[in-house]
Amino acid sequence: VVPHAASLQGMELSRWTVIVIDAIRASSTIAQAIASGCRRVIPVATIREAHATRRALAADRPLLGGERRGLRIEGFDLGNSPREYTPEAVAGRSIILTTTNGTKAIRAAAGARAVLSGAFVNLPAVVAQVRRRARVLIVPVGRSNAPVLDDVVCTGMFVERLLEVGATATPEAEVARMAYAGYRDRLVDALRESASGQALLKAGLGDDLPYCAQVGLLNVVPRLENGGLVP
Amino acid sequence: VVPHAASLQGMELSRWTVIVIDAIRASSTIAQAIASGCRRVIPVATIREAHATRRALAADRPLLGGERRGLRIEGFDLGNSPREYTPEAVAGRSIILTTTNGTKAIRAAAGARAVLSGAFVNLPAVVAQVRRRARVLIVPVGRSNAPVLDDVVCTGMFVERLLEVGATATPEAEVARMAYAGYRDRLVDALRESASGQALLKAGLGDDLPYCAQVGLLNVVPRLENGGLVP
Repeated sequence: VVPHAASLQGMELSRWTVIVIDAIRASSTIAQAIASGCRRVIPVATIREAHATRRALAADRPLLGGERRGLRIEGFDLGNSPREYTPEAVAGRSIILTTTNGTKAIRAAAGARAVLSGAFVNLPAVVAQVRRRARVLIVPVGRSNAPVLDDVVCTGMFVERLLEVGATATPEAEVARMAYAGYRDRLVDALRESASGQALLKAGLGDDLPYCAQVGLLNVVPRLENGGLVP
Repeated sequence: VVPHAASLQGMELSRWTVIVIDAIRASSTIAQAIASGCRRVIPVATIREAHATRRALAADRPLLGGERRGLRIEGFDLGNSPREYTPEAVAGRSIILTTTNGTKAIRAAAGARAVLSGAFVNLPAVVAQVRRRARVLIVPVGRSNAPVLDDVVCTGMFVERLLEVGATATPEAEVARMAYAGYRDRLVDALRESASGQALLKAGLGDDLPYCAQVGLLNVVPRLENGGLVP
C-alpha cells in the first residue's frame, strides 16, 4: 500500500499487480460501466485527450464520460456518476473517461504487470482475482495530491480481506487497515466525511455516496489491456 | 510519521524531534511517573540491563519498573501500570524501566535532536512543546514488529492537533490521522480493539485502558537527556 497516487512516481511496477482505488467515484463508475456490458473504458488524463481519442476511434462511435469539479463536462455524453452507466446507456459501447484523479492514476500505473480498478462495489471480485498473486500494490488514489478517507478506508478493507485469505501485509498496509477498522460498520460515514464526499455533497450529488458504499454489488474485475479497461 | 518503531532502523535522526508513542502503556506510565515527581525514568531494553543499571547507580537507590507479558517482572519494585506510579511510590526517585516495546523504541531514537515521550495523557503538552519545531517525526511504537491500533490512533490525534496549529503533514501522517478519525469520539474502543489492549484485557489489567485514554490528564513533556527521561 502506498499513501496516494503521487507515490507511484518513479516506481518500477513491472513485477506488481496494482489495484487502483478511487472509490468516489471513478472506480465505482468503471465497475458499473463494465457490469452494464460496455465494450471497454479508456481512461484519459485530459479533456483534450478525450476529444482526440474520440476522433481517432470515430469508427467505434465511443461515448465521452467524465467530470471536472464533480460535474459532467460540456459536450460529453455522460458524467461520472455510476448510476448513469446503465446497460441502456453503455452496453456494447466504448467509453472514453476522464476524471480529476482516478483516470490519471490508472494511466500512471500502466507499467505494472497488471492494473485492476477496485472499489467497494467490486471488492470481493477483485480480492478473489488477486488472492494468489505474489506482489499486490494497492493505490488509494487521493485528491489534490493528498490521501482521502474514502480511498484509504477502501484500501484498508482490501487489506483485511486479503489477510483473511492468507496474504501478509506491510506495516503501511496495516495502518490503512486501521483506517478501515474505525469505519467498519459505517462505511457511508467515511464516504460522507471524506474530502471527496464533501465535494460531492456540495455539488448536489450526494446520492452517489450510499451507491458507492455497496460492498460487492458488482461481480466484475476491470483490467487494463491495450489502454482500455475490459472485463 | 513512520508506521512503527522498526522503521527507525538506519534512519539519520540528528535533525529531527522524535515523539515516541506507546500509548498502552509505557508512554502513559512515563508521563505519570514524571507527573508524580520522580527524578528521572531511565529506559533500558532488557531485564539484565535493568539490574546492571541499578548496580551502577546504587548510590541513587533507583527503583526497578517494567513488564514482560504485561506483568511485573519478578524482583522489580513496580510493574508497567501508570496507576502504580503515584507520588507516594516514586517522588524524588530514579526509575529504571524496561517494557516489551516502548523502552526499546525510546532507546532506538536516542540519536535524534530531541526525543519526547507522548501518549493521550500528555498529548496537549507535547503538541504545545513541538508546535514551532521544523521537523517532527512521530513514531507509533507497535508490538511484535507490527503497528498497533492504540499507537497509530494516538499518532493520528497528534497529527490532527499539529495541523490545527499550522503544521503540514506528509501523506503517511494523513493516513495515520484517518485511523484516528474513525475513533475520534470513542478512543477507549480503539484501545480495547488494539492488540496491546487485547493482551492487557487477557492479563486482567483492563482498568488501565480508560486511564490511558484520558487526553490531557497530565501536563508533562518527558524528554530524554543523558539516557534518562526528565521533565
